[in-house]
Amino acid sequence: MDQGNTAFILIAAALVLLMTPGLAFFYGGLVKAKSVISMMMMSFGAMGLMGVLWVLYGYAIAFPATDAGVTNAPWHIDGADFGLANVLTTPEGAAYPPLAFVAFQATFAIITVALVSGAIADRAKFGAWMIFAGIWATVVYFPVASWVFNFGLAEDGSFSYGGWITHGLQDVFGVGAIDFAGGTAVHINAGAAALALALVLGKRVGFQKGAHVPHNPPFVLLGAGLLWFGWFGFNAGSELAADNTAALAFVNTIAAPAAALLSWLIVEKIKDGKPTSVGAASGAVAGLVAITPACAALTPIWAIVLGLLAGAVCALAIELKFKLGFDDSLDVVGIHLVGGLLGTLYLGIFANTSGLIYSGSFNQLIVQAIAALAVLVYSFVLAFIIGFAIEKTIGFRVKNEDEIAGIDTVVHGEEGYVLSDVRG
Amino acid sequence: MDQGNTAFILIAAALVLLMTPGLAFFYGGLVKAKSVISMMMMSFGAMGLMGVLWVLYGYAIAFPATDAGVTNAPWHIDGADFGLANVLTTPEGAAYPPLAFVAFQATFAIITVALVSGAIADRAKFGAWMIFAGIWATVVYFPVASWVFNFGLAEDGSFSYGGWITHGLQDVFGVGAIDFAGGTAVHINAGAAALALALVLGKRVGFQKGAHVPHNPPFVLLGAGLLWFGWFGFNAGSELAADNTAALAFVNTIAAPAAALLSWLIVEKIKDGKPTSVGAASGAVAGLVAITPACAALTPIWAIVLGLLAGAVCALAIELKFKLGFDDSLDVVGIHLVGGLLGTLYLGIFANTSGLIYSGSFNQLIVQAIAALAVLVYSFVLAFIIGFAIEKTIGFRVKNEDEIAGIDTVVHGEEGYVLSDVRG
Amino acid sequence: MDQGNTAFILIAAALVLLMTPGLAFFYGGLVKAKSVISMMMMSFGAMGLMGVLWVLYGYAIAFPATDAGVTNAPWHIDGADFGLANVLTTPEGAAYPPLAFVAFQATFAIITVALVSGAIADRAKFGAWMIFAGIWATVVYFPVASWVFNFGLAEDGSFSYGGWITHGLQDVFGVGAIDFAGGTAVHINAGAAALALALVLGKRVGFQKGAHVPHNPPFVLLGAGLLWFGWFGFNAGSELAADNTAALAFVNTIAAPAAALLSWLIVEKIKDGKPTSVGAASGAVAGLVAITPACAALTPIWAIVLGLLAGAVCALAIELKFKLGFDDSLDVVGIHLVGGLLGTLYLGIFANTSGLIYSGSFNQLIVQAIAALAVLVYSFVLAFIIGFAIEKTIGFRVKNEDEIAGIDTVVHGEEGYVLSDVRG
Repeated sequence: MDQGNTAFILIAAALVLLMTPGLAFFYGGLVKAKSVISMMMMSFGAMGLMGVLWVLYGYAIAFPATDAGVTNAPWHIDGADFGLANVLTTPEGAAYPPLAFVAFQATFAIITVALVSGAIADRAKFGAWMIFAGIWATVVYFPVASWVFNFGLAEDGSFSYGGWITHGLQDVFGVGAIDFAGGTAVHINAGAAALALALVLGKRVGFQKGAHVPHNPPFVLLGAGLLWFGWFGFNAGSELAADNTAALAFVNTIAAPAAALLSWLIVEKIKDGKPTSVGAASGAVAGLVAITPACAALTPIWAIVLGLLAGAVCALAIELKFKLGFDDSLDVVGIHLVGGLLGTLYLGIFANTSGLIYSGSFNQLIVQAIAALAVLVYSFVLAFIIGFAIEKTIGFRVKNEDEIAGIDTVVHGEEGYVLSDVRG
Repeated sequence: MDQGNTAFILIAAALVLLMTPGLAFFYGGLVKAKSVISMMMMSFGAMGLMGVLWVLYGYAIAFPATDAGVTNAPWHIDGADFGLANVLTTPEGAAYPPLAFVAFQATFAIITVALVSGAIADRAKFGAWMIFAGIWATVVYFPVASWVFNFGLAEDGSFSYGGWITHGLQDVFGVGAIDFAGGTAVHINAGAAALALALVLGKRVGFQKGAHVPHNPPFVLLGAGLLWFGWFGFNAGSELAADNTAALAFVNTIAAPAAALLSWLIVEKIKDGKPTSVGAASGAVAGLVAITPACAALTPIWAIVLGLLAGAVCALAIELKFKLGFDDSLDVVGIHLVGGLLGTLYLGIFANTSGLIYSGSFNQLIVQAIAALAVLVYSFVLAFIIGFAIEKTIGFRVKNEDEIAGIDTVVHGEEGYVLSDVRG
Repeated sequence: MDQGNTAFILIAAALVLLMTPGLAFFYGGLVKAKSVISMMMMSFGAMGLMGVLWVLYGYAIAFPATDAGVTNAPWHIDGADFGLANVLTTPEGAAYPPLAFVAFQATFAIITVALVSGAIADRAKFGAWMIFAGIWATVVYFPVASWVFNFGLAEDGSFSYGGWITHGLQDVFGVGAIDFAGGTAVHINAGAAALALALVLGKRVGFQKGAHVPHNPPFVLLGAGLLWFGWFGFNAGSELAADNTAALAFVNTIAAPAAALLSWLIVEKIKDGKPTSVGAASGAVAGLVAITPACAALTPIWAIVLGLLAGAVCALAIELKFKLGFDDSLDVVGIHLVGGLLGTLYLGIFANTSGLIYSGSFNQLIVQAIAALAVLVYSFVLAFIIGFAIEKTIGFRVKNEDEIAGIDTVVHGEEGYVLSDVRG
């Protein structure tokens, strides 16, 4: 066991945990002042719920115990898996304590669920959200995490259910899909679920371009700053060792969002005449999303190119909701789904050694597309069904008059700001 | 010396240092807009004062040099201890540089003092607070830290003054008290002092349930997020090594606050009809407090149970101040004292191997109760005396008219927000 | 390769990256509500631009490849340096991956540029700022970073261009300048450029003492808290190993800012009657600046003395701008230039072994003064020229009526706060 690597994984887990409060501020600053609490509470609620479910059975679903050297499929749970019972000690020869990996992956589960909430700003019941979060995580996130992050293989090298996206496809195409830190499992996954919920809940009252102005851009920047900071844990930490690959992932996690921030601002300047702070924050996040699957498989120059693309493409993609008429309120689709697809597919062309330009083969691109599509469709369909079932039973959306009055006081009995004793 | 462990300790220290600004926001968001600066300044003042005192003599009191292999009692200071003079180099064979431990423990001293200030919101003079902080730290925190965190033992295994709570009780009961990261030294300690100060300063003008509404719940959530993040350093870092125990502490530091966040919201929902963001933040902190002593001695399932208990019990405990009539303004008693007691006593029953359900013996419970009570009484009595002496001499509390006008302008000459050029 | 050290460097880099969002809040809280976005965007713009330039050619300028064992001078770039091409792998026997160092140093480049923006609050065009940032970084920061941080030496011990400040002066004076973490390269450098820009852009409309009140002191405290947190990565991380020296740097990074926070408040109390939160935040930053070059070369007691001096001196130095009539709006000169000079020169007297009081020789003081002066003059002159050229061509400053109306809406088309639906 290497204590340097263990320290790295644990601190990385702490950094990723902080991303969800960061997201709460990124999202919270984007909504109106009268729904800031509702928005943030969807993130903090996810922290509470996923923190518990992950320990109880989430980890067991995503990383089921190995039987006779064969990694079991997701959902293959025996009693020993429940409540982390089989990972409490560090086996002889392990590179790090299994519980360090449990902690690291817990923070991924939390933020993925929280990301979805951006699509349903201003209008979702908190209780309904929590029920959705629990079910969606159980039937979508936990197994999909297994598809991508369960790197286990049978000792004889035979087919392994675990990680079919990253390993299983290898048997057919000679290369597995590359998703270093969760472009598919986290971003496409959350983005597709967000699209589904935006359709289920419908548009906000008065939805149209320019109608909903961010009430607190400094909070958006705070959120972006904390997200970027935590993302180093997300990307470099996914190497599970403090080595050259982690350092490459780290450098790319500076380069790509930096480039995306610039290109988003340039697109804004050209399109609207003015570069905005919300654009800078969104650009950085778009770059972070795009580099997530790709951070260990690109040279820094190609990471910059990906970042430039991500900033520009996502800056344009967020207009789609107005054209197509779905109210993905805080652009989870435009940034996380589109950015995740971009980063995932980009690897098919530019990934070190296996990408089209290096290998001359389309196989990497094909497996990337399969991985992206599988997660997108699976998540969208199930999120739609779960969301629809909730809407038709207990109701997911608040009444229009409550939305207009302000969801914070109606649902949480709180106001975001009590400034009656502030002068001016 | 292991550089992985040293890296872990140093980064953990940085995380814990950030908790105090986090606390400033947790507390600052809970008060009125016209006392946000006063509230935050008590935390930042603690950073300044304790940062200096710890180096000058605090560490020397808490961790006095060993003479002939026997750990000396707190307050046994010889000249070599002053100003960290005897710990500037790393002895041959040491696991990590003593200065890394000095840094780590410095951050504990800072936050413990800062925690106390939550009881005296809106009405304490800054200078009086700083004097209280310096004296209380010197005669209470530094020695109590020694009782708990000074793990030194004589080479021949004979009785050691150092760490009587964690080691000394072992001679009598066969088990020492378990307090992995400071449930007694930090939370019961601060909570008891807070109760004393609430009594000394008396109630705020107009004190009654619902009279003082948090002015900025997003700040409360920001504070909770930063506290949770830093708490990984606090709890896992207390292992002083990146190993399986640290990973267990880390996982429990996800599980318990997550569970407590949920149970606090459920209690609120049942009791008041609506789950609040302040409740979510408070629940998370209550779970973090309760798991602090226990994080390395519980399986994650028992950590979840403790978290559920902590959230529910503390959500009810914060009503006590209205029934008993003391103005512990921001619930340091209800969360830190009660949560700290809960976590400390819980170990008597559920601690791995030595708890009642595993060992069939009440001894662990008895030593836990002794430890908790010793710290509680010692801290309360001395805090009361110090606070009372300050109030009767230079005065601790501002005039009522200044409290009503707003303590920020009166004491600090500043306003928390100057929004005269904001529209709306 | 030690993975503990690599983990330490990477996490330190993440901490330093967070300093720039921290700075955005420190600066953003100090300005008026109607220019908070402009202020923060200069920091976030620096993150975007420097993140890209550092990868493209900044690292290559500052740390040019070694030829035949001789470190090349800054600007000696061959094709292999472009885009980090020559540092993508970890050479046999390296202590850590070169990319980890690339990442760490990238964050220094970002924050140094961002620091400069404090001098030109409320009145700078964003595009002009970005152009200035790119040119100044290229011709000033990158080479100056090389003077200080490029520790490379020829294998035969002969003169090395790399790091003339820290190594080259050794040939003449027997001691090199001590600048552990960037007192010259970062703080004097940024402070001198800030002074130049304050002169180029001229005073804000209505500039006089007390005319510009910080609109959000809690943001200033948040910024200070994040800066302090990140500064542990900055200072201790500069050791590039988790060892005793890193631990000493860490302890001093607690002690000095703590002392400076106190002494700034004391000066304020004496001078103006009231200790302010902006003073506490500024004091902490002044102490952090002063300890930056000195953190590994002072005992903690001397670090406290330096902190006390820094807080008091900088608290007085920020009055200079009113006396001399330059509008260094957020006191980059008073804190970073003065604090950086103080810390750099203080080493001449108190540095372990080589300082005047230990060695009896003035040589350390002389080389410190040379280093400080070289950076100050180089940066000031070039910043003035670049700024002047921008002002005279595309214009650096917005029109007075736009400044009065509020730069946020004019330049970014955004308002910092939309509180129209907040009661009170």
